[in-house]
Parts: sequence; C-alpha cells; structure tokens
Amino acid sequence: MSSKLTCNKMHKTLSEHVSRHIQLNPNEEQVLHSTLKSLQLKPKEYLLKEYEICNAYYFVLSGCLRFYRNTENGTEQILQFGIKGWWISDYQSFENQMPSEYNIQAIEQTEVLVLERKDYKQLFNEVPLLNNYFRIMMQKAYTASLKKIELILCQSAEERYVQFNKAFPDFVQRIPQYMLASFLGFTPQFLSMLRSKKRYATSVK
Amino acid sequence: MSSKLTCNKMHKTLSEHVSRHIQLNPNEEQVLHSTLKSLQLKPKEYLLKEYEICNAYYFVLSGCLRFYRNTENGTEQILQFGIKGWWISDYQSFENQMPSEYNIQAIEQTEVLVLERKDYKQLFNEVPLLNNYFRIMMQKAYTASLKKIELILCQSAEERYVQFNKAFPDFVQRIPQYMLASFLGFTPQFLSMLRSKKRYATSVK
Repeated sequence: MSSKLTCNKMHKTLSEHVSRHIQLNPNEEQVLHSTLKSLQLKPKEYLLKEYEICNAYYFVLSGCLRFYRNTENGTEQILQFGIKGWWISDYQSFENQMPSEYNIQAIEQTEVLVLERKDYKQLFNEVPLLNNYFRIMMQKAYTASLKKIELILCQSAEERYVQFNKAFPDFVQRIPQYMLASFLGFTPQFLSMLRSKKRYATSVK
Repeated sequence: MSSKLTCNKMHKTLSEHVSRHIQLNPNEEQVLHSTLKSLQLKPKEYLLKEYEICNAYYFVLSGCLRFYRNTENGTEQILQFGIKGWWISDYQSFENQMPSEYNIQAIEQTEVLVLERKDYKQLFNEVPLLNNYFRIMMQKAYTASLKKIELILCQSAEERYVQFNKAFPDFVQRIPQYMLASFLGFTPQFLSMLRSKKRYATSVK
C-alpha cells in the first residue's frame, strides 16, 4: 500500500472499521469524514510529547505508532503500539485537559486521521451513534490491556514472547527489537537470547 | 452503611454516579432504574464462573467483588477488584457470547445492580445517552489498566505495594492478604515480609 493514501481510500478504511460496529447513514458518514483531518508522519515524528495536553484522538490508517513514557531510570517504557485500524490517544489528558505523562511517536512512515478536541463535541452531537462506536473501541482496548496484565503476571518472559510472535508474526519483524522488548517487559539482551534460541531450534528441526 | 440498601438509596447511588458524566431527564432516569435489578451476594458467592457466558454488567453499590482467573499452575490470578461505584463484567464474553475464562466473586457481603443482556439493547435504545456514559466508564477502566501495566513493568514489587497502600489505605485493610498479593503480582510471603518491614519502620520512628 502506498504511504500516501488518497482521500477516498482513507475514508474507506475508516468507514469499513466503523461499519463493523455501527451503521451510519450517508449524511452521518459525510459529517464524520469532513470532521477528521489526515496527517502524514515521518519516522520519529511526534503526535504528543510528555507535559503537553493531548488534544486529539488518532486513527491509524497505515504505519505504526508507539505510546510510551520516559521512566525515572532513563529508559523508555512502551505501553502500547498503534497499528492500522487502532485509535490511540492519551484519553485521560484529553478528557481532563491535564499535561500528559506519555509520548506518541511514529516508528515508521505513518498516516493517521485526526479527531481534534475542538470538533469532538460537535461531531458527537451530530452523530450520537459514535458514542456507541467509541464505547466498543474503549471496551476492546480495556479487555486487551487486562489480557496483557494477565500475561505479564501469569507467564514467563519467554512464554510472552512466543505467544506475541505467534499472534503478530509480521509485526514482530517490522519493529526494532528494543521496542518489542520494552513492550513485553524485558531487556533487549533477553529478547536477543530468545531469538537465537528460536533460530537454533528451527535450524535443528 | 447497612448491607441491605433501600430501593431509593440504590437508585441515588447510581444516579449520583451517572450524573457526574451525563445529564438524564427524569423519564430516562426512570427507565434506567426500572431496568436494573438489585442483587445481594454473600461472601464467596459468584456472579460469573469460568466457562459460563457473561450475560450482565454489574454496578457495585456496596461490598467488594474480585475478577480473577484460575491459572494453569493451580493458583488464582486477580486482575481487578470491583468496589462501590465500579462497573464490572467480562465484556468480551458479554459482547461475543463466548464462554468466559474468568470468575467474578464476592469477597464480602456485596450488593450490586444488574444490567442484563436481554434488557441492554432496549435500554440503550431508550436512553442513548448511556452510550456516552459507558464510553467514559470504559475509557476510565482502560486508562487505569494501562497505568497498572506501567506500574508492573516500571516499579519494584515493594514500590507497587507502597503506592497502592497510599492510594487505598482502607481497602488494603479490608481484603485478605493473599488476594492483595495476587492483584499486585507477588506472593503472600513477600507481602507479609513487606508488612513486617513497614511495622518495624513505623515502630522505630
């Protein structure tokens, strides 16, 4: 897929996603599409930096974002990735208009649709069904993060890596090793050891 | 507070909670209250057992619930507590009508309001603003669980315990030690050691 999506393609990607959960009429679709703006990001470009107030929801059309914080010991802790079809934001900062503790940054060439806070109330007033859609999105994000807590608490680092690799094999190849290690909660050295072990196991099969 | 709330008190507790986020008119309030049923649970009684399909959302009026799974190594992993003012459910099982992997059980005498799946669509049709309310509830639950992932990945077990104790001192006194240890991701022995250390530090001040 081209990194520069046409307007029609962008709308189609979002419309397909929305229509899995709610049915908008053509007028509502039109309001939604005209409210969201598209934005292209180069690798390492930021949508949000810590101490800023988060003033938008972002829908990923292509590429990949990471949501992370700078920890007290000088490392970066990745809490989430945003890939095609995901909404990402610092919802707490957005809702309460508080400075964020997090950063949202493009890992690769990334294209997003932006729902700005200044347009948000008007959009939800005009298309109230979107409350239903975002309720389902939040519910999905919440159950996914509960599942992640469970994996961290119940599984070994190696089991977590094997499971993630099985679920998202292409994604694992796409992102830098140290970011995957941060997301899964272990050091890049440990991840490197796991990968060598896997290569060895494959080569002696 | 009495463990058996009167009908008016129950409705007041829910209404106060809802009104922090959305404004319902008297008719909508009436529809909401007449749809939700109240339920009293004795300690150890279940709202959901693994392999069952979760067919309700529960709003905690008093007492405490735990949301947990039985792990492969025979332990119980607590992922969440439900205290006054929290909604709890296995949303994935509810939404997809799949057997749950989790259990929801009362830790103490608990009273909940029940929104059953059979009434749920009708309620949201009659009071569409509830989509907005539940969107905010899900958003809060999601940001809280992201914060928990961050604590588990960035902090030591001792730091987690100190922080939790500072945030919820009364709650820490109310629940059995082994449940708190499970929720915070360490053994009851480790928690016991931390508590002795804290008592010692307090006694030599």
